[in-house]
Amino acid sequence: MFGKVIDELIDSLRCLPGVGPKSAQRMALHLLERDRKSASRLANAIANAAEKIGRCELCRIFSETKECEICGNHRREQRQLCVVETPADLFAIEQSGSYRGRYFVLLGHLSPIDGIGPAEIGIDQLLQRLSDEDIEELILATNLTVEGEATAHFIGERALALGVQVSRIAHGVPLGGELEYVDGSTLLHAFSSRKRL
Amino acid sequence: MFGKVIDELIDSLRCLPGVGPKSAQRMALHLLERDRKSASRLANAIANAAEKIGRCELCRIFSETKECEICGNHRREQRQLCVVETPADLFAIEQSGSYRGRYFVLLGHLSPIDGIGPAEIGIDQLLQRLSDEDIEELILATNLTVEGEATAHFIGERALALGVQVSRIAHGVPLGGELEYVDGSTLLHAFSSRKRL
Repeated sequence: MFGKVIDELIDSLRCLPGVGPKSAQRMALHLLERDRKSASRLANAIANAAEKIGRCELCRIFSETKECEICGNHRREQRQLCVVETPADLFAIEQSGSYRGRYFVLLGHLSPIDGIGPAEIGIDQLLQRLSDEDIEELILATNLTVEGEATAHFIGERALALGVQVSRIAHGVPLGGELEYVDGSTLLHAFSSRKRL
Repeated sequence: MFGKVIDELIDSLRCLPGVGPKSAQRMALHLLERDRKSASRLANAIANAAEKIGRCELCRIFSETKECEICGNHRREQRQLCVVETPADLFAIEQSGSYRGRYFVLLGHLSPIDGIGPAEIGIDQLLQRLSDEDIEELILATNLTVEGEATAHFIGERALALGVQVSRIAHGVPLGGELEYVDGSTLLHAFSSRKRL
């Protein structure tokens, strides 16, 4: 009803996560009303990223170059490798500053029902790296979902067979989490993985 | 930290209303991870709109053409003119289907402190239309804020002086609104504008 060009803009904005018809309309009107310059800049940034961003050949994260900044950084611990499901997970870990080694991004998890097997999430490539490189510890940081656990288990078995030390990040009650509001399965985990003082 | 191209994308996305650093990052990763095609389409749509969309010469709404669809539609009531502050207000009225006349969009409200006077929000152009065209009723649908009320009052006075019939949309308790949760000034309005049955 706003004319072809605006309708197309509103419709396109809906490809963004968490943007429904109302927000898309608000965004479109905002861009047109107040922010033509930012609009052009945004259009360029999206087109540029969609065209230029590829994947790091080593860890499969998004990168402009063949090797990403993390893999190319020789000051990082070369003998630790952390397996995560998505780039967002990697960025969350990086932002927390809790890890100084390198990564391997699966870009998904094992899900036979959807036809996603080990090859689709690069496990072959990962195992190849474990054989070729001198990796001391493989840290499994997949999510604590059924699929994430299955994926961690699968990779763990293979890595152990290659003689690599494997660990899984700890799961339990989050910091500042009040027991009252923590869900049952997290509590179950927290109890079964309790540490002796 | 994600590399120049992605950082620029995340930063650009923040020009959208309601998008903070976290959502911008999520949007950027989503576009790169799953939706390269939609990303290119979105980039085109934004660039296209930023370049092509101008304003209707009659009512000042966004339009690809010199005269918008509403002003060009001769089946609409030609003798009613509704004054709104923003295009979003116009679209909200259109979507409700409560009005079949034409519009005039101020693109703001009187705000002397910010240097926004009658000329900046097109009141001269509006009064010119009232003199030139055969308008029977001018409906003031500016917001019920201090500025919106002042703007409505200012336009109302001028229009009355030109011999045009002027009305203001009704304000009061919204449909389905429970009195308990309605704010005091709305209740005050609802009482002072009460209708005799």
